[in-house]
Amino acid sequence: MERMKAEIIGVGTELLLGQIVNTNARFISEKLAEIGIDVLYHTVVGDNPARLVSVIETAQSRANLIIFTGGLGPTKDDLTKETISRCVGKPLVEDTKAMQYIEAYFERRGIPMTENNRKQALVLSASNVLPNDQGMAPGMAVKHEGICYILLPGPPREMVPMFENYAVPFLLSLISDSHIVHSKVLRFFGIGESALEEQLMDLIDSQSNPTIAPLAKDSEVTLRITAKAKNLPEAIAMITGVEAKIEERVGEFIYGYDLDSLPSVLVDQLEKRKLSFALAESCTGGLASRMVTGVPGCSSVYQGGVVCYTKLVKQRVLGVPSVILEQHGAVSEESARAMASQVRELMSASLGIAITGVAGPESAEGKPVGLVYIGLSSAEAEKVFEVKLSGTRDMIQARAAKYALFYALQELKA
Amino acid sequence: MERMKAEIIGVGTELLLGQIVNTNARFISEKLAEIGIDVLYHTVVGDNPARLVSVIETAQSRANLIIFTGGLGPTKDDLTKETISRCVGKPLVEDTKAMQYIEAYFERRGIPMTENNRKQALVLSASNVLPNDQGMAPGMAVKHEGICYILLPGPPREMVPMFENYAVPFLLSLISDSHIVHSKVLRFFGIGESALEEQLMDLIDSQSNPTIAPLAKDSEVTLRITAKAKNLPEAIAMITGVEAKIEERVGEFIYGYDLDSLPSVLVDQLEKRKLSFALAESCTGGLASRMVTGVPGCSSVYQGGVVCYTKLVKQRVLGVPSVILEQHGAVSEESARAMASQVRELMSASLGIAITGVAGPESAEGKPVGLVYIGLSSAEAEKVFEVKLSGTRDMIQARAAKYALFYALQELKA
Repeated sequence: MERMKAEIIGVGTELLLGQIVNTNARFISEKLAEIGIDVLYHTVVGDNPARLVSVIETAQSRANLIIFTGGLGPTKDDLTKETISRCVGKPLVEDTKAMQYIEAYFERRGIPMTENNRKQALVLSASNVLPNDQGMAPGMAVKHEGICYILLPGPPREMVPMFENYAVPFLLSLISDSHIVHSKVLRFFGIGESALEEQLMDLIDSQSNPTIAPLAKDSEVTLRITAKAKNLPEAIAMITGVEAKIEERVGEFIYGYDLDSLPSVLVDQLEKRKLSFALAESCTGGLASRMVTGVPGCSSVYQGGVVCYTKLVKQRVLGVPSVILEQHGAVSEESARAMASQVRELMSASLGIAITGVAGPESAEGKPVGLVYIGLSSAEAEKVFEVKLSGTRDMIQARAAKYALFYALQELKA
Repeated sequence: MERMKAEIIGVGTELLLGQIVNTNARFISEKLAEIGIDVLYHTVVGDNPARLVSVIETAQSRANLIIFTGGLGPTKDDLTKETISRCVGKPLVEDTKAMQYIEAYFERRGIPMTENNRKQALVLSASNVLPNDQGMAPGMAVKHEGICYILLPGPPREMVPMFENYAVPFLLSLISDSHIVHSKVLRFFGIGESALEEQLMDLIDSQSNPTIAPLAKDSEVTLRITAKAKNLPEAIAMITGVEAKIEERVGEFIYGYDLDSLPSVLVDQLEKRKLSFALAESCTGGLASRMVTGVPGCSSVYQGGVVCYTKLVKQRVLGVPSVILEQHGAVSEESARAMASQVRELMSASLGIAITGVAGPESAEGKPVGLVYIGLSSAEAEKVFEVKLSGTRDMIQARAAKYALFYALQELKA
């Protein structure tokens, strides 16, 4: 097959009304870039057959891979496959497996299947059916007159696994120079995107396989290393070589890989060491605790936390001496230290982590917005880190919580 | 001008690479829907002049309002206005005000202006310049041969205020039957979208002005009432009439309006009553606290919270009697009641709110995933509500936290 040029067509009036954002196009684009397929256009059109036909005709004139999302459901509005069927002259036929799956779905729930649900088992004839592990409407992939059509459901929780598990392997099988593409994400904290790029500029510029792509998001930076190779072991070896060079220069800021997150890595590391921890949060107001308890299984290491938004709670619940609060203020190295050691003792944890600072919008105690102290307390040592953060209230809270988890992680590794 | 049919064109290779999501198209679509302009297509194209030309030609054949986002910056890649200039035959001319603004920008920062920044002051001749209050590149609005072209910068923080403050008034001036459009959002909790629609079906179906549009998002439902009228007082009167009918039927589920959120309304209501509150969270792990402390100024009513993820913390920090935990389990009406009253006393708050339940993914104490108890304690009364929630761990946590704030709010209003 000649080099693929892709267009992604989102079908759904709710997109044109601004009720939802087209995250499907972003996700598919990213995945296609990873396997070396260029995306040239995104298009969104409503649930209108005439306009969908003209959008398909335009796409046929400028792309040889056309990916549709949406319009595969049971209602009258859902008309993607019906319209494509007419455009390419392929009839719709009932897929036995899909029909069985749908019938079983209703049987499990003990509710009668309405007739319109049968429609979901119809697929374009001679197409590769892409199973829907999260819902009822199957996807399809079909080649016709030099153009490849892929039809995917609209809800991201159905589309994402279908695309990754079934559409990507199908596309890879079409790419003539047989190779695989593999990538690994390195996750950084405590270093900005431009500082990281500066340290790695020569590597990033000189590498064409593997490629190194930085991305900044939510106060974190990631580097995606992507290798094209004959097979997986070869790709992994290529990635490992580049990774070693990166680690040598900026390894101290790497906290994890691929799907890791700061709280998941912290929970993991504590579990391995059979340690526990507790949190005392002032300016982050429960956010660090919430991040940790978003990790399933965190209860094996997380004892609990105190959100001490007032001096009264710092004193009465945590037992921070009032002399510290009065002499140094709640936003101080001394208070952070006391909060960490008190919460550790109170909750019988191996590690106490405390966060106190000024999230804004107004300064407090004569201290500037963005000044945050992170206290760490263990049986061996007590430490306090001072950070100066910028951004809105929400951003300062999020960054402060992440710094606390990051410093705790550094401490464990030290 | 005839009825406007809009196409929104996003220009930028970063969109096609999946590095960012096209939130601009969503925002603009929503705002256009509010003023009664239909959006028929969204298109995204890269920083490529030939492809941009063909996208513009397609749009000219099917829309009479074409809105561009992106490609107005100083670099070589930025070519939106240059390409439109060629397509419609309008030269680019330097806008004096924009040039002064850019020069002043560099002067304030004390850095020399590079030559490529001059490019940002170029605008299509005879266009209405849309000021950029958040950046350097101005926007433009221009009519040519029956088609209106609007050019906006790509970064949302520049685009959003420009669109709201300058593009919308320009568009309203074009709509021939001079009227204004005003809307009000009613925010619901504790009732699903379909149940709400069912109760209001006749109203929703029969209304054409004002319109009533339901939207479900993040376990909440909103109704947007939009009126078209000669002036604002008339629009408000029309909205008030419909609102009264809605309130009569489902008023108990309305917690706020427009930009309100459950935590902001709760903070507000407590402030008015000069009351304070404290939180004891088990399965939500700090999320309710985090939601509350996202509201600036919450410290006047929020004392603090305890994240009691373990029995030890429930007993030792909160002082929940161990006999309750042993006889009924941590996920029980009795524990919720004790947690609420203990945290209220511990933190000297007027109101204690407790959340205990099973967030999943696994059941606990033989109790099913999704079972949650909300305890409320005040000097006057103690109450416990049982809710059964569905969804993923994250969704159950989010819903449980919102239910807690909602019940607290109901209690205040009672």
